[in-house]
Amino acid sequence: MDSPARPFDDIRALLKQMPGRDEAAAEAVRLREAQLTKPAGSLGRLENIVEWLAAWQGAARPHLDSPLVAVFAGNHGVVAQGVSPFPQSVTQAMVANFASGGAAINQLCKTFNLGLKVFELALEQPTGDITLGPALDEKSCAATMAFGMEALASGADLLCLGEMGIGNTTIAAAIYHSLYGGKPEDWVGRGTGVDDEGLKRKAKAVGAAIALHREHLGDPLEVLRRLGGREIAAIAGAILAARIQRVPVLLDGYVVCAAAAILHALDPTALDHCQAAHVSAEGAHARVLERLGKQPILDLGMRLGEGSGAALAAGVLRAALACHVGMATFAEAGVAGKQD
Amino acid sequence: MDSPARPFDDIRALLKQMPGRDEAAAEAVRLREAQLTKPAGSLGRLENIVEWLAAWQGAARPHLDSPLVAVFAGNHGVVAQGVSPFPQSVTQAMVANFASGGAAINQLCKTFNLGLKVFELALEQPTGDITLGPALDEKSCAATMAFGMEALASGADLLCLGEMGIGNTTIAAAIYHSLYGGKPEDWVGRGTGVDDEGLKRKAKAVGAAIALHREHLGDPLEVLRRLGGREIAAIAGAILAARIQRVPVLLDGYVVCAAAAILHALDPTALDHCQAAHVSAEGAHARVLERLGKQPILDLGMRLGEGSGAALAAGVLRAALACHVGMATFAEAGVAGKQD
Repeated sequence: MDSPARPFDDIRALLKQMPGRDEAAAEAVRLREAQLTKPAGSLGRLENIVEWLAAWQGAARPHLDSPLVAVFAGNHGVVAQGVSPFPQSVTQAMVANFASGGAAINQLCKTFNLGLKVFELALEQPTGDITLGPALDEKSCAATMAFGMEALASGADLLCLGEMGIGNTTIAAAIYHSLYGGKPEDWVGRGTGVDDEGLKRKAKAVGAAIALHREHLGDPLEVLRRLGGREIAAIAGAILAARIQRVPVLLDGYVVCAAAAILHALDPTALDHCQAAHVSAEGAHARVLERLGKQPILDLGMRLGEGSGAALAAGVLRAALACHVGMATFAEAGVAGKQD
Repeated sequence: MDSPARPFDDIRALLKQMPGRDEAAAEAVRLREAQLTKPAGSLGRLENIVEWLAAWQGAARPHLDSPLVAVFAGNHGVVAQGVSPFPQSVTQAMVANFASGGAAINQLCKTFNLGLKVFELALEQPTGDITLGPALDEKSCAATMAFGMEALASGADLLCLGEMGIGNTTIAAAIYHSLYGGKPEDWVGRGTGVDDEGLKRKAKAVGAAIALHREHLGDPLEVLRRLGGREIAAIAGAILAARIQRVPVLLDGYVVCAAAAILHALDPTALDHCQAAHVSAEGAHARVLERLGKQPILDLGMRLGEGSGAALAAGVLRAALACHVGMATFAEAGVAGKQD
């Protein structure tokens, strides 16, 4: 029989194999940027984005030929604690909505020509209620992380991560509380729109979960399997696989960043290939991004999930790359440069 | 012979004819938003953007069938004061670059399927050096405003405004200083990239211009013709024409907002059909937006001009509208709504 630590051994091994930036590719981008018909630095973060794409794709000519939005859906036992105003059946119904093209993420993917894959994670088997026991056993947590790595199987050159799961803002709040301390109230938010009583139930559930598991929260992977959920485990796996395969990642909002926070707690460099697509209106996301050292690309008061913020930021990436690739140089355009 | 005030009479008359929001169209958008498969309000500013489009297009079903980026280019006598590190010939060269598709704005328009029109404003005749006299006489200022209204001639349903003009950040700074007070240093910035000495020359030029014209700056249109430039006058005309013709406007950065500030000083409601596309990295733009009561859609450290920030924000508008138009309702998707 496996020892309790074993199922995570592969994950820990991957964390030791993470490649760094391709500095030569980044330098090639900077050299081209300096020749383009604009004042140096005047495209601001767009220039930084292209350099980041190059550095993490390991490509002097960065590309967005097959950007993918991967949405992971899971169900959560903690819903029994009255933490969401929507019934658990909505997770499955929204997955059907993704399949038939009716959700926000479908429209965003169409607008910016992004691929979309939805990964359904045993929706009929919600994870354990974290106020009563662990969400997952080690083996299924590790297996779900491995399954998340499948998001890269089709050869994406940009990975936008999203999620769907009634109850999962409570799960994310429990993860943040365990990693970053403070009070449960510091981390819970309105989610899909709970009222004041619902917000109190969320804080109570988070507090109860931390109290129950507190002896076992020193290891971030243990935090993930005890307090997490299948979509969060899968997203953590996908982020890690993207790093190994040199695919830059756009993190979506509050819930996706809980998966990122687990990896960041394991190794602070584990998110260097990721950008925060946006800062969510959900409760504590801005403070989470500070902890992760990420400056969001967008700040539009969104709090939908589904990868919607990441898909919108992918539109910004398309624009940034189009400028870098398509602009004329000063020499090509016969434009005089800056005079010394 | 015309009296000095006469050429602006048409402009003043238009300011009295500005239509307001179409509240029925806005209400129709809100009703549909409430039925779409997402928690209420969870698309944040995207929802607000669609309502704004509807209210100012006067259309219960807002559209982006013919969005246009209009770039106005002008030359400025104040360049003689050493306020830019680039020679004045760059304005014409960049206009040629726009025509051949090599500039940033061309790539952004292609990315988001936006029309692009460039309006060249007598580049061979720079305006008067504002440190020595007025930039324009009343007649040519009013005529240039009227010419700017031509941006609407092709029937755009969204107008993104941009500019090109070596020296025009100094012109914009002079306008802000005259409208908002403070010191010249409060309003000048690095523009295309002046060094410390250049920055001092900009502040000196702004101070000299205000000192020279100070007896005549009580009327915002007089500010425009004395301290402005052709592209700024044309943009002011375009903003006003868009209002009359019910076309929503995306304002670009520091220079475009100087034209907007003139209208705002004439009538604080004159920009109600405009959104600030972004906050520029150029000096005082954030403070200008506060004065105009506008919250920028994007904050990406851009300071290029050409309408680049407005074009990028038009991509966000495309996404916002796609969600509103394309998403399924709770009823269509068979998704359970919020439980009371």
